[in-house]
Amino acid sequence: MNDATTLSFEALAKRIEAILRRAGLSDLHAGAVSRVIAVGERDGAKSHGIYRIEGCLRTVATAKVSKDAVPALHDDGSAVIRVAAGGAFSPAAFELGAPVLAARAKDLGLAALVIHDCAHFSALWPEVEALTELGVAALALCPSYATVAPAGGTRPLLGTNPLAFGWPRPGLDPYVFDFATSVAARGEIELHRRAGRLLPEGWAVDADGTATTDPDAALAGAMLPFGGHKGSAISTMIELLAGAMIGDLTSAEALDALGTTTLIPRHGELILAFSPERFAAGRPGDPFARAEALFEAILGQGARLPSQRRYEARRQAATGGIALTGEEIAHLDKLLERGVDA
Amino acid sequence: MNDATTLSFEALAKRIEAILRRAGLSDLHAGAVSRVIAVGERDGAKSHGIYRIEGCLRTVATAKVSKDAVPALHDDGSAVIRVAAGGAFSPAAFELGAPVLAARAKDLGLAALVIHDCAHFSALWPEVEALTELGVAALALCPSYATVAPAGGTRPLLGTNPLAFGWPRPGLDPYVFDFATSVAARGEIELHRRAGRLLPEGWAVDADGTATTDPDAALAGAMLPFGGHKGSAISTMIELLAGAMIGDLTSAEALDALGTTTLIPRHGELILAFSPERFAAGRPGDPFARAEALFEAILGQGARLPSQRRYEARRQAATGGIALTGEEIAHLDKLLERGVDA
Repeated sequence: MNDATTLSFEALAKRIEAILRRAGLSDLHAGAVSRVIAVGERDGAKSHGIYRIEGCLRTVATAKVSKDAVPALHDDGSAVIRVAAGGAFSPAAFELGAPVLAARAKDLGLAALVIHDCAHFSALWPEVEALTELGVAALALCPSYATVAPAGGTRPLLGTNPLAFGWPRPGLDPYVFDFATSVAARGEIELHRRAGRLLPEGWAVDADGTATTDPDAALAGAMLPFGGHKGSAISTMIELLAGAMIGDLTSAEALDALGTTTLIPRHGELILAFSPERFAAGRPGDPFARAEALFEAILGQGARLPSQRRYEARRQAATGGIALTGEEIAHLDKLLERGVDA
Repeated sequence: MNDATTLSFEALAKRIEAILRRAGLSDLHAGAVSRVIAVGERDGAKSHGIYRIEGCLRTVATAKVSKDAVPALHDDGSAVIRVAAGGAFSPAAFELGAPVLAARAKDLGLAALVIHDCAHFSALWPEVEALTELGVAALALCPSYATVAPAGGTRPLLGTNPLAFGWPRPGLDPYVFDFATSVAARGEIELHRRAGRLLPEGWAVDADGTATTDPDAALAGAMLPFGGHKGSAISTMIELLAGAMIGDLTSAEALDALGTTTLIPRHGELILAFSPERFAAGRPGDPFARAEALFEAILGQGARLPSQRRYEARRQAATGGIALTGEEIAHLDKLLERGVDA
């Protein structure tokens, strides 16, 4: 086994990009997807880091994603900006739409970006964070695969449907949260299974709809929404707004379409952007300064702001590089040489 | 004690309106507030029904609300419509802004209504429901009073910050949810106190920030957000968007301003409206039909849709009238004759 290595963000991104190009992705998509993966690794979000490359390559190998569709922006001057991803991975579509979304939000106060027909590949926090850098607050939501039962139900219907929000903090890391509306991510159940540990109560039901703490039974059954009927309602709202309303697949439809959760799902995404300056215009107080007072009050009583662990990992990566084990480096080398089986 | 009585919606609303007029509210506000209270009573939401009249009268008696400010609509043609409530109760401001909001959403795809400087008096579900009747989906949020500690914190800072969503179901009761982002409403803790019952675990902390199941200790301490850090993040987002961003008070500022939770709080509200037709234009499938498939799948596995109990109570009221106890009727009579002490 090789020794551990540290890489710069750019070096890691380039290495991932080479793997994706070798798999046949166009320059545009290899670049955009590799940046998103490198960001996950850099920020210590291992489940969104290089671990994701294989799923990406599997999806390419099964021809369930376009390798080279060029995202197309449709802007009719309204509050809704659309990017047709043409069946390709989502990051390039987001990169195309984000500046237009931010500009429209600054113009109208509020705007939405819809990404249509994408193989959805990204955590939502890099996206809302990118929008805060453009000076707007952002709320992002999308369906996923039907693996979650509605509260009171027994079978998978909803996705883990992430919800992410970002608020700009000039001169500071933005306020960003991003979480699954299931009580746990599917990967966490998988980690319990591999470690031979029981799940906490309330995470899942088995295939008969009965509460279970057995990871295998949970994976064959359904996860549960966070926060009982409240989380279930929010997850349902995400299916409605970021599925039915935008004319892209719901989580149940996305699973039907591919028949497996091991490939990157094909659906859409909805991102709302708000211009605090526009909303606050003519009102007392500066919205950013008032938000800081709220954050200080949260921190002042010993509570944490979300994303702090990511920002800390990012700072460490900026000074010391991104640390990968010898095993991880060898895995990247293998993926570059041989790809994955379909 | 008098016998129980049933009243029609109109008769109950008229009776409440008379009480509010006697307290000095202008026709506009007496009408709008009485409709909201009668809706709560009609729909079996007792905590938003005639029970609320006293808090309303107390707020009037202490001169913490304008009795007659005429709400003013400000529309610059952007995606943000504003109604300045001028320190009066919120329902008249909502009634003024709602049709403009729905029309703008149909024009631009997405729009926001901001209500500024109101004594916020209404559950949010009548509002999102009214918007579904105008053909748009709606998401409403507002702060309240600082009575909830952030996850990991020890002291009240966030409000019970309600979040409500509505989706039109042509020919059917809309899909509507409305819940506090605290694990329980303050009224539920009060009910436990009166009944001499302990609270469930996880509802509250005492004044030292230690978990408690004692209702008195909880009322002197802080409630907790639903769903741990996820609910806490959503509640914080509500403070940011519907407080700091719109230039109205946060929950902490609202409590500071009045110094008590027994009066109706003075803050703003943010309501987003989405036109499903506009979002779905040119996309496969009808958004409303696709939403119905989702609702059928939820119901088909024995889970419930939110608000069904309210709709059931409403149907009963439509045929049999709204049932009030003799005690409740006597209370209404007393409020009409004598009002409340400040």
